[in-house]
Amino acid sequence: MLRALAEAAGAAVRLYPDPESRALREAAARVYGLPADHILAGNGSDELLALILRATVDPGTRVAFPVPTYSLYDTMVAAQGGECVRVPFPEDFALPTGLAGARAHVTFLCNPNSPSGTLVPLAEVESLARAVSGLLVVDEAYVDFADSSALSLIARLDNVVIVRTFSKSFSLAGLRVGLLFGRPALLAGLRTVKDSYNLSRLSQVGGLAALEDLESMRANVARIRETRTALSSGLERLGFHVLPSQANFVLARRRGTDLGPLARALAGRGILVRHFASPALRDALRITVGTDAEIATLLEALRDESPR
Amino acid sequence: MLRALAEAAGAAVRLYPDPESRALREAAARVYGLPADHILAGNGSDELLALILRATVDPGTRVAFPVPTYSLYDTMVAAQGGECVRVPFPEDFALPTGLAGARAHVTFLCNPNSPSGTLVPLAEVESLARAVSGLLVVDEAYVDFADSSALSLIARLDNVVIVRTFSKSFSLAGLRVGLLFGRPALLAGLRTVKDSYNLSRLSQVGGLAALEDLESMRANVARIRETRTALSSGLERLGFHVLPSQANFVLARRRGTDLGPLARALAGRGILVRHFASPALRDALRITVGTDAEIATLLEALRDESPR
Repeated sequence: MLRALAEAAGAAVRLYPDPESRALREAAARVYGLPADHILAGNGSDELLALILRATVDPGTRVAFPVPTYSLYDTMVAAQGGECVRVPFPEDFALPTGLAGARAHVTFLCNPNSPSGTLVPLAEVESLARAVSGLLVVDEAYVDFADSSALSLIARLDNVVIVRTFSKSFSLAGLRVGLLFGRPALLAGLRTVKDSYNLSRLSQVGGLAALEDLESMRANVARIRETRTALSSGLERLGFHVLPSQANFVLARRRGTDLGPLARALAGRGILVRHFASPALRDALRITVGTDAEIATLLEALRDESPR
Repeated sequence: MLRALAEAAGAAVRLYPDPESRALREAAARVYGLPADHILAGNGSDELLALILRATVDPGTRVAFPVPTYSLYDTMVAAQGGECVRVPFPEDFALPTGLAGARAHVTFLCNPNSPSGTLVPLAEVESLARAVSGLLVVDEAYVDFADSSALSLIARLDNVVIVRTFSKSFSLAGLRVGLLFGRPALLAGLRTVKDSYNLSRLSQVGGLAALEDLESMRANVARIRETRTALSSGLERLGFHVLPSQANFVLARRRGTDLGPLARALAGRGILVRHFASPALRDALRITVGTDAEIATLLEALRDESPR
């Protein structure tokens, strides 16, 4: 991977990149079992999400998503002048029943969801896709850490788009590479709003090298899934309510308790966990699955900081 | 430069890049003598041009530019639903008198212009900026090959934006780096439509390394300017009318003669020059300034192919 990047930097950085990212998309086609014309490469999945909204949202267009979720959807819909329809998740973060009925032009589903880590099962994603009135965008940023993906729906349904990123399971956030999967007719519409040279040569080469070394990613994912189980049990033993996570983080709650002070106490010990300002998440911490040693340190610190 | 890229690839590609490209912008501030808050970094100058249009153009908004020029303006304005006001250059590619009177919300000036290579002098750019009703965007993609830049206008006028690229004089097209200069209030508007992580770590590091090694760029530019003079004289000796070029290419014409066949004959000898389909440029070739040896080969081929 590093060798591939250094070679690209040496040989060809003076030449324009391929605006179609062909080599990268062909590698993705082999890995994901979809034709290359069903794949669009982006400057991170954020660019791909922005392309979808730019191509589909005019002032007043309704865009629905369950909340709480990835905060960027709100920002991006607002940038296009669209109207956000926020449908609250139930307590257990199951798919909200009202989502399909929101009569939205575009529906987003972050799956696994952030910050809950929960996964909506494939059969329910399929039902949702069949029930929504417009496009269903499944944001699978964390899907490599999960048991199942919605990728198979692309072959069966023409209103589903799936977005992935190399920033999480591949640990390549600095490279800015994302992939979008969908029907060619849909992708043609997205290309009309895409900057021609959206991916540098180095990003294309780095993404390609990552796809040709899936074993590294899978080993990383296997390690994180194992540590995730240990972290969840440890947190439960300390009295936290932990949602079943399919991502590389877990959401741990203490019903009715503002965990802001606890997050600050941990920060004072050099341990960073995420606390959210929103009232619905005040009693929760989002904890990234680190190394076994980091998790041991965290659990020890939580034992110290916990009310006796 | 290559060392800097390889180091970035090794150390930090797993971390998200700085969304503000601070180190790159601070280096640019030192080089160009403007505060860093007057500078925005983009994924090539194409992204920066797209940001300007996304932030300023609604359906029906008038965007004016002299023609013929960089063909992307047409495409980008159309993508936003804007209305292009195309003001023809006179024969000598001087600034068209009608441009300021086009009552456009945004005016583009590619300076030096492509494909003519001609430069509108600074004093005339300033007069234009004072006369237009809205924003003046000076696209200085080729300005390092020219005698003067409009960068000094940023301090005097609040409706001027200047866009530069690392793809030409720095020979870094594969890296996708561009810079935009303008007043902070204007840049704030552009940031609202920018993807957060628009520049990868490698692009930021590569752009920074390029700015810290200006001597390489200047040596490259000096060589091209010398060869450009030789190329222009050689073409004139062969009976071409050559516009005074301030870019890394020259436009050579044979009044009234379609040069398509000549371009194809050169291609048959492995020499690539640009011929344009548009009627106004049928009698012209855009020739990139290559090495001295390439130019000698071209001139020899032109002698062979010329009508006796």
